[in-house]
Amino acid sequence: MPTDVLRELLEGNDVAGMQQWLDQRLPHEIADELGRQDAVAAVLLFRLLDKDRALAVFEELDPVDQHNVLSGLRDKAFHDLVEAMDPDDRARLLGEAPATFAQRVLEGLSQRQRAMTADLLGYPEGAVGRYMTPEVVPLRQHLTAGEALNVVRTKGHDAETVYTLPVVDDQRRLQGVVTLRRLVLSPPETPVHELAITDAPRTRAADTAESAARLTRDANLLALPAVDSEDRVVGLLTVDDAIELIEAADTEDIARQSATTPWSGHYMAATVVQLARSRVIWLLLLIVAATLTVNVLQFFESTLSQVTALALFIPLLVGTGGNAGSQAATATVRALALGELRTSDILRVAWRECRVGLLLGTMLAVVGLGIGTLLVSAPVAITVALSIVAICSWAAVVGSVMPLLARRVGIDPAVVSAPLVTTLVDATGLVIYFLVARAVLGV
Amino acid sequence: MPTDVLRELLEGNDVAGMQQWLDQRLPHEIADELGRQDAVAAVLLFRLLDKDRALAVFEELDPVDQHNVLSGLRDKAFHDLVEAMDPDDRARLLGEAPATFAQRVLEGLSQRQRAMTADLLGYPEGAVGRYMTPEVVPLRQHLTAGEALNVVRTKGHDAETVYTLPVVDDQRRLQGVVTLRRLVLSPPETPVHELAITDAPRTRAADTAESAARLTRDANLLALPAVDSEDRVVGLLTVDDAIELIEAADTEDIARQSATTPWSGHYMAATVVQLARSRVIWLLLLIVAATLTVNVLQFFESTLSQVTALALFIPLLVGTGGNAGSQAATATVRALALGELRTSDILRVAWRECRVGLLLGTMLAVVGLGIGTLLVSAPVAITVALSIVAICSWAAVVGSVMPLLARRVGIDPAVVSAPLVTTLVDATGLVIYFLVARAVLGV
Repeated sequence: MPTDVLRELLEGNDVAGMQQWLDQRLPHEIADELGRQDAVAAVLLFRLLDKDRALAVFEELDPVDQHNVLSGLRDKAFHDLVEAMDPDDRARLLGEAPATFAQRVLEGLSQRQRAMTADLLGYPEGAVGRYMTPEVVPLRQHLTAGEALNVVRTKGHDAETVYTLPVVDDQRRLQGVVTLRRLVLSPPETPVHELAITDAPRTRAADTAESAARLTRDANLLALPAVDSEDRVVGLLTVDDAIELIEAADTEDIARQSATTPWSGHYMAATVVQLARSRVIWLLLLIVAATLTVNVLQFFESTLSQVTALALFIPLLVGTGGNAGSQAATATVRALALGELRTSDILRVAWRECRVGLLLGTMLAVVGLGIGTLLVSAPVAITVALSIVAICSWAAVVGSVMPLLARRVGIDPAVVSAPLVTTLVDATGLVIYFLVARAVLGV
Repeated sequence: MPTDVLRELLEGNDVAGMQQWLDQRLPHEIADELGRQDAVAAVLLFRLLDKDRALAVFEELDPVDQHNVLSGLRDKAFHDLVEAMDPDDRARLLGEAPATFAQRVLEGLSQRQRAMTADLLGYPEGAVGRYMTPEVVPLRQHLTAGEALNVVRTKGHDAETVYTLPVVDDQRRLQGVVTLRRLVLSPPETPVHELAITDAPRTRAADTAESAARLTRDANLLALPAVDSEDRVVGLLTVDDAIELIEAADTEDIARQSATTPWSGHYMAATVVQLARSRVIWLLLLIVAATLTVNVLQFFESTLSQVTALALFIPLLVGTGGNAGSQAATATVRALALGELRTSDILRVAWRECRVGLLLGTMLAVVGLGIGTLLVSAPVAITVALSIVAICSWAAVVGSVMPLLARRVGIDPAVVSAPLVTTLVDATGLVIYFLVARAVLGV
């Protein structure tokens, strides 16, 4: 277990041991370990790396960890690292860092790097502009493949990628993209515009980065060209950034799905207070909402006192309803995230899920009937069984429709979390239960 | 809303309209729409595409949809498509298709393609070998950059990627990788072994594809070389396949997290029965487990009948406990999936979550105290408040520890779903509640 070894080394302050440990690891492995450590330990370890590896490791760190490490470094090392960063990574770091820190970073930068970073920071948070690389090698469309390759050879060193090359006109307007592969495999005299893919997907630099990332994935691109409002090429969104964006979005959705406020950073690095803060708001909202269940039960207290046996099945019923609702909600939220669903599907989805709920409810009712008859009495068992059918289909509809409604009014569908659906279904489920009870038991 | 338009065209059998609709879309957009349609409609639309676009669209389809489309085509079109597929895509298709279908595919293949496909199918399901491309361009280490470029020019046309090139010795054993970028940007006389990255990550073709995909992402690679047991290069896992693998894994985890059996395919394309089938098993298990809550309540029935007011807070308490448990479970499951957590962290995690639970419980208890006093009486309110604290910390520990235990015994941590945790916490939470009640109310 690498971490444990490392923790021992850190606690024992065994520098030689840490040195040796670091030498045996790849940059991304070291970055992963640094992310697990507190700021002090991270800096200590980072300082033990030689210059080249330090940069390699640094590039693999999350912005929050980059911030921690940098804060612990002296000016020289600090500025060397910051200067060497890719502009997009730097922009992301500054986007999340406090102003004083951003100040310190920008001051140390060379003219050119500062300019590029400023450009990227000009885009709104979450926009493609914050994640794209501005260091691109645009090719004039009238070049030949051979000439284009020479352009790549002379200008390609700074670029983050040279595998996807934007083809532009004299106004730097995007005409299409050509891959380095095509340039290399084609006869040198072939004109670039013949090799270019002219209907290749593109994005506005101001568009949201997440959708651009999903487009990059859907179209299996290594890089997606980003243009300004005049269609001029301003950057490229590379696939590695696209993957990070998609995974970050998934992590956020998953957190929201469990009624947790998403926070950036490593689980093990988060403090107890941070974890609690990310969860408390929803728990408070939900417990207040749950008061509704108390009111419902108070309303039916007479029925309850006449047939106390009804109380026995309350957790089972609300639990089952909650589970059925969570399943439907999770399925629709994910389908929305993957673009499989559109808000216009709402009625079809409701009808589908209603039937799914009836089907599931019927199967579960059989079990409920058995449990009820076994543990209490036939009439109560029948009440429970009928309630299960009604609650399941109701829960499935609520769970599936709410995310679509959220999307329609512009809220992230993922906030329709399993706990939220459960809480809502609990109260309504109890109403159903007692209405059925009154009808069946005639109380 | 594109789908609605398309559905109308399909219902109206407006071929000209569909044709026009297809002409305005990019391949991956058409593939997405085909995935939303039933098999018949998908084939109908697919047949309207001209040969080149048909292939482009086909490559973007999920295996399930590829199977549907192919089944509807006549032999000629069928074999042209299958022959043109990348070997790894073909292997994936055959891996999921019925034997008779696989038969029909393999018969039509050329010698070379059949051999490559057979090799890939030789690997176990879920292994890198099923997802890698076998069409690689290995470079002998003694070549110069210029010679290497010529190798790429002559052999590169069939390869799926030429951006990451494995460098091999005379026994085809992997010595490192060199990027096309380096070959193009370096002086032609530079020896390849000087340009090669020798400590580049690699994977065994027999290893699990998901971990290889995550390695590809963690190390920001465009392709990960796959080797056999003798370290000989047998293929490359390209980043686009890595993304698909990661997203599929995330989708599976998300489904499991809501106690749903993952199924491949499009939400809108799934039938009501398919949806129900993917959800029923867990619901049945959970409702049986929920019987425990009935037993618990029966056990405390005397207490309940003495203080019927206790019944009012049952849904609120089990709900809150369930929510707290789900949050903890979701956080740990995701952290495990992202490699942020290891099973060796189990004790630290338990201790962290226990404190988080206490913190959250205390804050929620205040609300519970208020609600209780307002709606019922102080003693009951105190009972509720104390129970909330105990239940929250208990739920957080259970929710966080169970996924780690699951991983330790070799079960996918994601099966520790929110509903599962909720159900388990429900019964135990009730015990806590009534024990507290007896102590506080002295009943």
